[in-house]
Amino acid sequence: MTADPALSDLTSVAEAIADRRLTSVRATEACLERIETWQPRTNAFLRIEAESALARARAMDAELAADRRRGPLHGVPLAHKDLYYRAGELSTAGSAIRRDWRAPSTATVLQRLDAAGTVELGFLNMAEFAAGPTGHNVHHGHCRNPWDTQRVTGGSSSGSGAAVAARLAFGSLGSDTGGSIRLPASACGVVGMKATYGRVSRAGVAARSWTLDHVGPLTRTVRDNARFLAAIAGVDARDATCSTAPVPDYEAALVEGASGLRVGLALPDALVPVDPRIGAAVEEAASVLSRAGVRISAATIPDFTELYRAAETIVKCEAASMHRPWMESQPDRYANQVRTRTEAGFFIPATQYIDALRLRAHFLREFLATAMPELDAVLLPAIPFPVPTIDETDVEKSGGPATLAMVARFTGLTRPFNTLGLPVLSVPCGFDDNGLPIGLQLVGRPFDETTLYRLGHAYQSATDHHLKAPA
Amino acid sequence: MTADPALSDLTSVAEAIADRRLTSVRATEACLERIETWQPRTNAFLRIEAESALARARAMDAELAADRRRGPLHGVPLAHKDLYYRAGELSTAGSAIRRDWRAPSTATVLQRLDAAGTVELGFLNMAEFAAGPTGHNVHHGHCRNPWDTQRVTGGSSSGSGAAVAARLAFGSLGSDTGGSIRLPASACGVVGMKATYGRVSRAGVAARSWTLDHVGPLTRTVRDNARFLAAIAGVDARDATCSTAPVPDYEAALVEGASGLRVGLALPDALVPVDPRIGAAVEEAASVLSRAGVRISAATIPDFTELYRAAETIVKCEAASMHRPWMESQPDRYANQVRTRTEAGFFIPATQYIDALRLRAHFLREFLATAMPELDAVLLPAIPFPVPTIDETDVEKSGGPATLAMVARFTGLTRPFNTLGLPVLSVPCGFDDNGLPIGLQLVGRPFDETTLYRLGHAYQSATDHHLKAPA
Repeated sequence: MTADPALSDLTSVAEAIADRRLTSVRATEACLERIETWQPRTNAFLRIEAESALARARAMDAELAADRRRGPLHGVPLAHKDLYYRAGELSTAGSAIRRDWRAPSTATVLQRLDAAGTVELGFLNMAEFAAGPTGHNVHHGHCRNPWDTQRVTGGSSSGSGAAVAARLAFGSLGSDTGGSIRLPASACGVVGMKATYGRVSRAGVAARSWTLDHVGPLTRTVRDNARFLAAIAGVDARDATCSTAPVPDYEAALVEGASGLRVGLALPDALVPVDPRIGAAVEEAASVLSRAGVRISAATIPDFTELYRAAETIVKCEAASMHRPWMESQPDRYANQVRTRTEAGFFIPATQYIDALRLRAHFLREFLATAMPELDAVLLPAIPFPVPTIDETDVEKSGGPATLAMVARFTGLTRPFNTLGLPVLSVPCGFDDNGLPIGLQLVGRPFDETTLYRLGHAYQSATDHHLKAPA
Repeated sequence: MTADPALSDLTSVAEAIADRRLTSVRATEACLERIETWQPRTNAFLRIEAESALARARAMDAELAADRRRGPLHGVPLAHKDLYYRAGELSTAGSAIRRDWRAPSTATVLQRLDAAGTVELGFLNMAEFAAGPTGHNVHHGHCRNPWDTQRVTGGSSSGSGAAVAARLAFGSLGSDTGGSIRLPASACGVVGMKATYGRVSRAGVAARSWTLDHVGPLTRTVRDNARFLAAIAGVDARDATCSTAPVPDYEAALVEGASGLRVGLALPDALVPVDPRIGAAVEEAASVLSRAGVRISAATIPDFTELYRAAETIVKCEAASMHRPWMESQPDRYANQVRTRTEAGFFIPATQYIDALRLRAHFLREFLATAMPELDAVLLPAIPFPVPTIDETDVEKSGGPATLAMVARFTGLTRPFNTLGLPVLSVPCGFDDNGLPIGLQLVGRPFDETTLYRLGHAYQSATDHHLKAPA
């Protein structure tokens, strides 16, 4: 254990707690100390719950003292995006409308983390109702990138990316409807997993678009992430979309290495122009994987233009249906862009929505058959250009076509994989000329998160990008 | 075995074939002989495939001669609604538009029946694109009730009801989007099972509304039906909506009887007026069950008015999405009522469709919690008034409000259970003053088809309505 346990990773801290080299209380205090320093800079937290976190840490230490260890996350301090419900507690979803709303029940994933013995440090900043890919929030203040507080964190799980990157928590739940786990993971230099649609329960999580919403963990390392996902994944009677497929032991599979796996590299310039510096970092990552025995080939990303339109239709219609009561009663409490995008959903015909759902099924079949027929994963960038500033992506202040187009490009490589429901692991793979992180995506076959973790772990075993922290 | 094996039931014929007391060829010939007599009266078949049926029967007999029995349906002649695909073969879905269309692949349920060793006598009449609850078909000729050829069979699986009732096939696949298995089962005096949504694969079956479509068997007895469903139910990689829940041995469960099961009787006059003769037959069925040890209480059917509207929205929107190409290119090849109902789907906003889907989930929770909290099944009529004539329900000839209202009442007690996705068994329970069959419905809890079969079998063990055949 390093002098400051907060600088360690989730797995190391969990093992140190298990071995009594560290207490959960000390780990929690270390996080709270860093939060004190970093919260004013990043605005990562919406609510810091120091007292209850320490009480919980003491209880977890007491259990260990009585020789009861709940499992591989016992005593580990985490913090979550503020759309995971805890019964009777506030849950704002980053909005003004739900500023004082209290949740009626606890999210299944929080129940599972409770059972696993984790500590909750508080709840994290996010885009209003998860509708924004950058980290802006006009109600609660923007979240700022710990590597450069003038730059965006990525969103909508902005606080999740910032908190894990700044070493304020060992892991965090985010959620991803168009890139909202992978964008902050990439921009903040941490690992994010958007697992297969249906892999993780969404019961008790504020929805943006149930057809496209995915929940999942952000962590410092791939191993941490594998450990975290295993604790939350799997069938849930409260969520009918949740798969009954058994959950593998992701972490145990890491020892298998990545040798012999087949990865297709794609720099889909025709879809979204990829900045040369970003492209070079991802190509370099392919070389690293190749040296680890991975068979690298070229992959082709299809023209996703129609899929983008389908996704936009789906999210607008589903959000409009959910927001109708508030849209009617308190429209002025939304940010302008959030309101206008959601309102648009009221004017879309049902057949267009249904056609969009059918197109999605068609694209999934095509993608698996044509882009991935002989591949275990596709490797491509997460964000196709250097992390932009908060000002240049502020659609509320300057919502002109250029700003909107930049924000659309920002999500251009993440959105299609929500629509397809495929698992995607985002892993940091270097730094841009401004010193901001670059992230890669590994897209897998349905329910094959294991292969993505094996690839990501092989990559991190040979590189050190994930060891660097913002100062 | 009776002199004419066609007059027997599926289970008896299957066991006679297994015991070499009967050949599959003889059973097939007996069906074909009856078809020759009854086809001109009923128009139950759209295509009779005598030669291929006999060839298949010979092959099944040869397997038995070599001591290979595929299972409990080996050698049994069946016939199916003309919307089950067989690769390279015609499949009209009762339409003019698909009169010469050939299916690209074989339905999963037909593959399973093939593997089970059944014989296919041909494909059966049905409402155009399964959009009509009575048995009318302007393109291929109306299907006529074998008990009285001036009266409707019920639809949309009109030929399925007529063929099984007239002893032309030992069982039949129908499909049910608003009552289309239970209505013909009731009106023709046979047993129909609309299993739980997701219980049976719909891959390779022409869709009307994938949110509401269910496929399932019509047979002469409840035991036959249990045997048939077990052969087709269960997970299918080709149908993502298909449940992975294991399939019980329905037939083996019949020996458990019905004693101690709790059934709520409902004659929901407030929802749809129930004819006294129909109500009395269903009350008498409750008495029969009571004597078999079933605990009968009164059940309350909620006000389903909003659920009817939701279902109508869902079916119109999904049908419109699927029919768009034909609606644009050959609208005059639809029956008027089919076209106008489908066209309406183009003018419904997406949020209304989504709201309808959400209302459905809400009603299901409410129904299970309030109508069925302490019940194993709800007992109610299938069709709330005596089987009407073909003329008085002909919406193409006289599509006035009175005719439309009568047709709406015809389906008033079946439709809600498609929307809720619950399993429903329809069982004949007597005859009306015109000598036409009366049917009851037993509505179960999700994936509890077993209990419905136990109840239906207990009822048939104490009564003889199912033994009577039209002359």
